[in-house]
Amino acid sequence: MIKTDILIIGAGPTGLFAVFEAGLLKLKCHLIDALPQAGGQCAEIYPKKPIYDIPGFPEVLAGDLVDNLMEQIKSFQPGFTLGERAETIEKLEDGSFVVTTNKGIKHNAPVVAIAGGLGSFEPRKPLLDNLAKFEDKGVAYMIKDPEVYRDKKVVIAGGGDSALDWSIFLADVAAQVTLVHRRNEFRGALDSVEKVQELKNQGKLNLITPAEIIALNGDEALESVLIRKISDAKEELVLEVDDFIPLFGLSPKLGPIGDWGLEIEKNAIKVDTFDYQTNIPGIYAIGDVNTYPGKLKLILCGFHEATLMCQSAFQKIHPDKKYVMKYTTVGGVSGFDGTKKEAPKAVVKKIE
Amino acid sequence: MIKTDILIIGAGPTGLFAVFEAGLLKLKCHLIDALPQAGGQCAEIYPKKPIYDIPGFPEVLAGDLVDNLMEQIKSFQPGFTLGERAETIEKLEDGSFVVTTNKGIKHNAPVVAIAGGLGSFEPRKPLLDNLAKFEDKGVAYMIKDPEVYRDKKVVIAGGGDSALDWSIFLADVAAQVTLVHRRNEFRGALDSVEKVQELKNQGKLNLITPAEIIALNGDEALESVLIRKISDAKEELVLEVDDFIPLFGLSPKLGPIGDWGLEIEKNAIKVDTFDYQTNIPGIYAIGDVNTYPGKLKLILCGFHEATLMCQSAFQKIHPDKKYVMKYTTVGGVSGFDGTKKEAPKAVVKKIE
Repeated sequence: MIKTDILIIGAGPTGLFAVFEAGLLKLKCHLIDALPQAGGQCAEIYPKKPIYDIPGFPEVLAGDLVDNLMEQIKSFQPGFTLGERAETIEKLEDGSFVVTTNKGIKHNAPVVAIAGGLGSFEPRKPLLDNLAKFEDKGVAYMIKDPEVYRDKKVVIAGGGDSALDWSIFLADVAAQVTLVHRRNEFRGALDSVEKVQELKNQGKLNLITPAEIIALNGDEALESVLIRKISDAKEELVLEVDDFIPLFGLSPKLGPIGDWGLEIEKNAIKVDTFDYQTNIPGIYAIGDVNTYPGKLKLILCGFHEATLMCQSAFQKIHPDKKYVMKYTTVGGVSGFDGTKKEAPKAVVKKIE
Repeated sequence: MIKTDILIIGAGPTGLFAVFEAGLLKLKCHLIDALPQAGGQCAEIYPKKPIYDIPGFPEVLAGDLVDNLMEQIKSFQPGFTLGERAETIEKLEDGSFVVTTNKGIKHNAPVVAIAGGLGSFEPRKPLLDNLAKFEDKGVAYMIKDPEVYRDKKVVIAGGGDSALDWSIFLADVAAQVTLVHRRNEFRGALDSVEKVQELKNQGKLNLITPAEIIALNGDEALESVLIRKISDAKEELVLEVDDFIPLFGLSPKLGPIGDWGLEIEKNAIKVDTFDYQTNIPGIYAIGDVNTYPGKLKLILCGFHEATLMCQSAFQKIHPDKKYVMKYTTVGGVSGFDGTKKEAPKAVVKKIE
């Protein structure tokens, strides 16, 4: 069982910054996220897009903001359970919580902070009869480790940035990459579209459009897919593949957290603005996942909420300790890894 | 009379960021600050010190944070009244406010946002009989424009960073710089102390320690100061000078704002966390100057408060308009100067 002080559900910008504020209070954090990497939407959906309303950044790429936050919290050594969805919660007799993921990993903490954004991002799945049978046996909706596809025959379906970007990436890794899309037109960054065109011209990528995959075949694992051209002729072909990766986008779902007994309003968790605590004492909700009068779903608001949440969590975890806030400019930052960052001290020195 | 949508009192980080959030809502801002430049404490007290708790910045110098914010708000063309203190407020029949500074400049706006930090920074003054007589006639407590001292004979008093830094700077500008301090020891950045030592060794700076200025003389304007050495002999000397600049630090005072009829608690202005409005409708308080249950005096909290304040101000100014929030990543930022920043658009393009 993984034990920590504050268990954070959701590793987007708000969850990540909570690690920093908790660290200043000497509280340790562990984060669970359904996505395969930290950063939430910023890393998964729009890493290359600029954000203009992060205070102090006239412009910052979403992916760079995540990198900066990871650097900022590094010395507080957060733990991560990635690619797993927080599924159930139970309260122990000592008042602490146990959160179990869909893969059965258990996490124990006196405080739980839900920083789940719009919810856990669930892949949109194609409507194919025996899809579930091949999940993890040739069918995947997200690429967690591209090395899995080395020297394999892969078919990717989709027409957006993910389908384009992974086709480009896997063209160098897999034995064969086939990209199937319902239209001839792709929608994505100009660079990516042009790169796919180039790979196709060089024969490094197999492109089948307009077409769709209409059946999956295989005994135990996936062995082939049936592709139908979208045309008057409706020509069909069987393609032998090891892997089928439909990349049709992610759709956020509040998911199992919706059944944890929390007060929900408009698909968000109601909190008190004093400390962003939910109706269940010890469970907080910060960032886009919460709601309160005047709520704005902005990253900068999540940072504020994370900060006030940590103060309240500290009181809950250490009811008899009094914390006196010290400015980082004055007190510096002492990492759990033994590092210390601080402003150069003023000297007192005689001039003679 | 200067007219604007939101009149912001205090040009520290919170006040500056409010300009950005207001700009997204197409509201114009004008800022008043008692200090001679924007940036509040960050620019005046600790520009060279690192801050570690601004989200997304593992480390940022306070002065650089201000520069970044100025860059971020540039296209929203804020107006500034600097080096003047907001003194009085009156409400007009149309519901708008007129704020007048200590120099008589009047500002009119339907919404006032007080972002006054710890208050207006008032210089600590030496106890000298006729000090007031020479104010602006040879005596200054802040240096607004160093060119004023070109080819003048200047005496600076103080033993901290300001006294050291301005002595160094003016050594190249003034005809003669004399630095007087009660002790032989100075307290400041090692660099500055060493630089002053060097200037003294080179004869470019006149150092008199331990000593203090005990009298000011002059007919209309300042003509000389009387300096007494702090020693058993108590030797005294008359120094002919054009200017006397005591730099004994700044002390924050809520000041005249304290008399505006706002509810005050522990030297801060009480607000509602819904929109950070005070007890007087149309007057908001954001950043370190306000208080509410759970309040933390952190820059990142001021950013959040500024953002929610702007939403409420928009409703007040345009009661019949409905604002639909657009993410800057999606909608970009349209400056009042005609500039537009936005994410590169995705293309829809055929691959053949």
